[in-house]
Amino acid sequence: MTQTDTPFSAAEDTAAAHAEAQRRKILDAAQRCFISRGFHAGSISEIAAAAEISQGLMYRYFENKRALILALIERQLAHDQASISGMPASTDLVDGLLACYQLWARGEVLDTHANAIASVALYAEINAEAHRDPVVAEVLRRHDKQASAAIHAWLREHDRARGVPVQEDAIERRTLLLRLLAEGLAMRAVRDPDLRLETVRELLSSAIARVLGA
Amino acid sequence: MTQTDTPFSAAEDTAAAHAEAQRRKILDAAQRCFISRGFHAGSISEIAAAAEISQGLMYRYFENKRALILALIERQLAHDQASISGMPASTDLVDGLLACYQLWARGEVLDTHANAIASVALYAEINAEAHRDPVVAEVLRRHDKQASAAIHAWLREHDRARGVPVQEDAIERRTLLLRLLAEGLAMRAVRDPDLRLETVRELLSSAIARVLGA
Repeated sequence: MTQTDTPFSAAEDTAAAHAEAQRRKILDAAQRCFISRGFHAGSISEIAAAAEISQGLMYRYFENKRALILALIERQLAHDQASISGMPASTDLVDGLLACYQLWARGEVLDTHANAIASVALYAEINAEAHRDPVVAEVLRRHDKQASAAIHAWLREHDRARGVPVQEDAIERRTLLLRLLAEGLAMRAVRDPDLRLETVRELLSSAIARVLGA
Repeated sequence: MTQTDTPFSAAEDTAAAHAEAQRRKILDAAQRCFISRGFHAGSISEIAAAAEISQGLMYRYFENKRALILALIERQLAHDQASISGMPASTDLVDGLLACYQLWARGEVLDTHANAIASVALYAEINAEAHRDPVVAEVLRRHDKQASAAIHAWLREHDRARGVPVQEDAIERRTLLLRLLAEGLAMRAVRDPDLRLETVRELLSSAIARVLGA
C-alpha cells in the first residue's frame, strides 16, 4: 500500500519522528547509566529520570532493561554496518584504527546523540551481560555475524575491484584478522592507553596490508 | 632475620596458610558473584554468604568491593605471568590459543580453586569497572604493563636462543601483535563462538609465526 501525502500521513510522520526522538533520548540515557553504574545497578526509573520522561511513558518504549540493552546492540550494529560500508582502503584504514585507539584510550563516548557509539565501556558492559543473559548473547551473536558478513563482502568487492581472484577461505581469515586487530586494540586502549603510537602504526601498517590481501 | 623451625613459627605458618585459604575462598566467591550479577549488583554481605564466612571476618580480609576487584586483578596477573614464562613456541602456541578460544567460547571458568582464571566474563567485568573507577584503572594498567614486559622478555630470550640479533622496536611490535591476537580472540569467543576452527588455526599459524619473528 502506497501512502499519499495527505495531512493525515503528515501527522503520522510527525508522530513517528517524535517517537524516534524519544527512543533515542531514552537509549542515550540508558547508555550513560549502564556505563557509569553497570547494567544491574541502575533501575528503569533512574533511566527514565535521566531521560527526563515519566516512567509510564518509558514502558511504552521499552518494557525492561533487557529491551534497552537489545536496542543498544541494534544501534551499535547499524553504526558498525555504516562504518564498514564506508571503510577506506590501505593507509586510511590504518589511520582510522589508530584514531579509534586514541579515542578509546581517552575513554570518550563520541556523539551520544547520533548513532555513533564509540565507547569501549559500553562494549565491555554488553559483553559482560552476554555472559549472564542468553537472550542478550543470542542477539549479540546474530548481529555480530552480520557485521562480519559486511566486512567479508567489503573485502570480496575490494578484491574484485583490483582484479584479484576471489578466494572465500582467505577472505574469511582476513575478516577474522581485521576483527582481532580492532577488538584487540579496543582492549589495549582500556588496559594500556599509553602505547607508543609509532609502534601501533607500524604494526597496523603491515597487518592491514595482509587484511587487504597485499 | 631467618626463622628457625620452632613450634611458634610452625603455628605462624599454619595461620598464614589458613589466612591464604580464606582469602582464596572469598576471592572465588567474589569472582562468581561479579560474573553472575555484575560488580555493582552484589553486596559484600552476599559475597560473604557465598564464601560461607561471617561478614565481620570478611572485612578483616577485604575492606570493600574495590579491594576485592583489585585482588582479582592481582591474581590474574600472577596467572598471566606464570602462563607467559611457560609459553611454548611455534605450533604449540597456536594450539594453546586455539584451545583458549574454544574454552572461552564455551564460557567456562576454569579451575576456580586455583589461580587459573580463564574467564572472559571476569575480564569484561574488570574492563567495565576500570571505566568507572580510576583506582581500578590505575592498578589494571600497572599490571598490564608487567604482563607486556614479561612477553617482551620472553620474545627477547627466544631471539637470543635462536641467535637472532635483538631488535627492541620489533619485539615491541611483536608483543603488541600477540596481545591483540589473544584479546581479540577472547572477544570473538563471546561474540562469535562458532568460528570455524580451521579458519582460526590457519590465521593463527601465520600470525604467530610473525610474533615469533619467523
